[in-house]
Amino acid sequence: MSKFNVSCPSGFLEFSPRHERVRQQWIKVISESFESFGFMPISTPLVEREENLLGKGGNPKEMYVLKRLLDDDGDDSHSGNALRFDHTVPLALYVARHFSDLTFPFKRYAIGPNFRGERAQKGRYRQFDQCDIDVIGNESLDFANDGLVAAVVINIFQNLNIGDFVVRMNNRKILQGFFAGLGIDSHHIKPVIDVIDDLEKIGAGKAKEQLEQLSVSHEQIAAIFLFLAITGTPEVMLEQLSALSDNEVFQQGVDELTQVMNALAAMGVQQDLYKIDLAIARGLDYYTGTVYETNLLEYPGLGSICSGGRYEDLAAVFTGKNLPGVGISIGLSRLLSQVLDAGIVKPDRSSPSEILVIPADETPEVKAKALEVASKLRKDGKSVEIYLEKKKLSKKFDYAQKLGIPECVIIGENELKSGVVTVKNMESGEQREVSW
Amino acid sequence: MSKFNVSCPSGFLEFSPRHERVRQQWIKVISESFESFGFMPISTPLVEREENLLGKGGNPKEMYVLKRLLDDDGDDSHSGNALRFDHTVPLALYVARHFSDLTFPFKRYAIGPNFRGERAQKGRYRQFDQCDIDVIGNESLDFANDGLVAAVVINIFQNLNIGDFVVRMNNRKILQGFFAGLGIDSHHIKPVIDVIDDLEKIGAGKAKEQLEQLSVSHEQIAAIFLFLAITGTPEVMLEQLSALSDNEVFQQGVDELTQVMNALAAMGVQQDLYKIDLAIARGLDYYTGTVYETNLLEYPGLGSICSGGRYEDLAAVFTGKNLPGVGISIGLSRLLSQVLDAGIVKPDRSSPSEILVIPADETPEVKAKALEVASKLRKDGKSVEIYLEKKKLSKKFDYAQKLGIPECVIIGENELKSGVVTVKNMESGEQREVSW
Repeated sequence: MSKFNVSCPSGFLEFSPRHERVRQQWIKVISESFESFGFMPISTPLVEREENLLGKGGNPKEMYVLKRLLDDDGDDSHSGNALRFDHTVPLALYVARHFSDLTFPFKRYAIGPNFRGERAQKGRYRQFDQCDIDVIGNESLDFANDGLVAAVVINIFQNLNIGDFVVRMNNRKILQGFFAGLGIDSHHIKPVIDVIDDLEKIGAGKAKEQLEQLSVSHEQIAAIFLFLAITGTPEVMLEQLSALSDNEVFQQGVDELTQVMNALAAMGVQQDLYKIDLAIARGLDYYTGTVYETNLLEYPGLGSICSGGRYEDLAAVFTGKNLPGVGISIGLSRLLSQVLDAGIVKPDRSSPSEILVIPADETPEVKAKALEVASKLRKDGKSVEIYLEKKKLSKKFDYAQKLGIPECVIIGENELKSGVVTVKNMESGEQREVSW
Repeated sequence: MSKFNVSCPSGFLEFSPRHERVRQQWIKVISESFESFGFMPISTPLVEREENLLGKGGNPKEMYVLKRLLDDDGDDSHSGNALRFDHTVPLALYVARHFSDLTFPFKRYAIGPNFRGERAQKGRYRQFDQCDIDVIGNESLDFANDGLVAAVVINIFQNLNIGDFVVRMNNRKILQGFFAGLGIDSHHIKPVIDVIDDLEKIGAGKAKEQLEQLSVSHEQIAAIFLFLAITGTPEVMLEQLSALSDNEVFQQGVDELTQVMNALAAMGVQQDLYKIDLAIARGLDYYTGTVYETNLLEYPGLGSICSGGRYEDLAAVFTGKNLPGVGISIGLSRLLSQVLDAGIVKPDRSSPSEILVIPADETPEVKAKALEVASKLRKDGKSVEIYLEKKKLSKKFDYAQKLGIPECVIIGENELKSGVVTVKNMESGEQREVSW
């Protein structure tokens, strides 16, 4: 039909009205949760300087740089820029730009698209929405903030209403300190943590093998599995943990996690919605303390739907300041696609309209009355459409049916004379007469 | 301080919390207006195929193509894409992709960023938000839709509350037909229309000169200025117009504009909010009928803040179908910058928080009680922050002051014992005691 390939570029998503309305509803729920805890919105450009993105860990294989298709006019102010790949680097740059004007702790949220030139594969998008919060301290940041961040996550997933979930928390210092206390070589600690992080995916047998390959002794392996077997309420676990190792880093981790749990308890957060899970590590070296993962209990296959952690250094490379922080990110595009695919969320109708006003006769008088009635209903706060094309009545009802508009108001010559309109419920087919 | 240049790339805007909160509020008002008239949201990728963007009028000098910074891995699925420059081409592609599933007239809205690699200059951005609505018909589209579109624009600017405004409308067929009827050469009609379009900017004297250069005779020029002098209510103007020329295209334009005005009258739209202005033409050849501009009466210097029109062909190049449409676009970034700069909109406070809970003593008990109180206030529907860092009390009040948080709730050892907290109004400085 056309010489053009009109499909979306590979890895780029579109949302039709039914799904887009869910996406907007989610963004509303998420931003309202963020704001109820005092997080302030900022919006930074989708485009940043290439060297700044590279300076904070951008992968040049996945980074999209911008170039004008035709740039022979000598204007080089366009070069050297690339699309952002997360909200963290833009936050660091924002803080660097505004450091002296900011009020710390600085609590911001950011919702919007990021871009990564990954290989195309199912569930991976090259443009994807992320919803981030971070609390940034100047020199120091109280650990109760890490509890607040968990409370925000819990609040969001309660409000999104997509089934039972749990926020799993750990502290990387507990892992590092415990493994150091066991006598594991310092340069093996990071790979050992990575094995633990993968435990759920690879299983205990495979994990044991991998630990052996890292020269972890049988005795150490036994101690590790004993450590990982510690479960229970945060209180019980923290008590057992505090007696487990006198490694200083380990004890610091236990102390930090205790403060986080105390904050959650003080806030009265429902206890079955969060727990300590000693196998959570988050791969990134960036995190230095608290780490978070969130899972839907009925859909473990989705993996973590909201993750994050505490870091010691947001932006020293840009600011020369010591700015510790804690934050989480929700991968909105990915999560939304998954819950829609899995049928966890059932989208509502395509149209926001509550009423379709239908002129039943094609006269100027009927059309004028229909426009008037639609306008009046709109002033009453309803979302109202009017069908203006010359079509058979059945086609007009089809329009309402296809878009899922729940009610039609029908106005024809008869209605014009009688001052009574017919209101049809599109689901039940019931009709009633209403005088206007 | 840093070897990095952390400023935003030239032509790319950021919004700090105070302004970002206004931006979000505007998007909410605009999308609610769109939805109250039954427009459905869609979201298309920010990235489209280069050849599709070029196929619908993209300017290669202003088009940003994407390229991975490092792309030596043989994965060429990333090439040939560029950032979209408006919402119209993505709409055309969307309609082409989903033609057989769509319900016509198809009414969609799109709000989001577009990109143009223009020369950097004040008020011009390389990334800018646009808010668009369009109604797309299949083969035909009733002209009352053009009235509906004007009603949406009027509804939005009433709700945004940025002062008196007027939507000015015309029909390009009236101009084309009138000039043809005067005997102006067909190949001169487009340049003559462009002169009329510029009339407000260049003034009558200059316009006259330019018309002379286009070989328009003195008699014709006199007739043109007489034509442009027709003013008054739509009724009066349309009556005068219909007697002015028997050119067929002209009469068709008058008929179309009459239908638009009849729809606005039927909807009961306040008459001083719209008018016919025969000097409005919109430069683009794309428009073939109704054209819109919108001006703030107290700020004529801002130019048109919302423009659009009727077109005969949305997407034939992609679909091979005859799809007429009508739509408008609000250049949100530009307008918002202008109204903020001009002081037309006064941003509210930075923080969404209504209350800051302040622990007045640094004990675990006080902190726990403060977290509990904050959590309870939040459950009552308030936006509540808590100050968790160890700082002097005055620093904690400073935090509330700087972010504009209107109330502080202070909890210390005394309050813990007495069961009474102090509530301080930050504007008046007044304090009152409240038992919890």
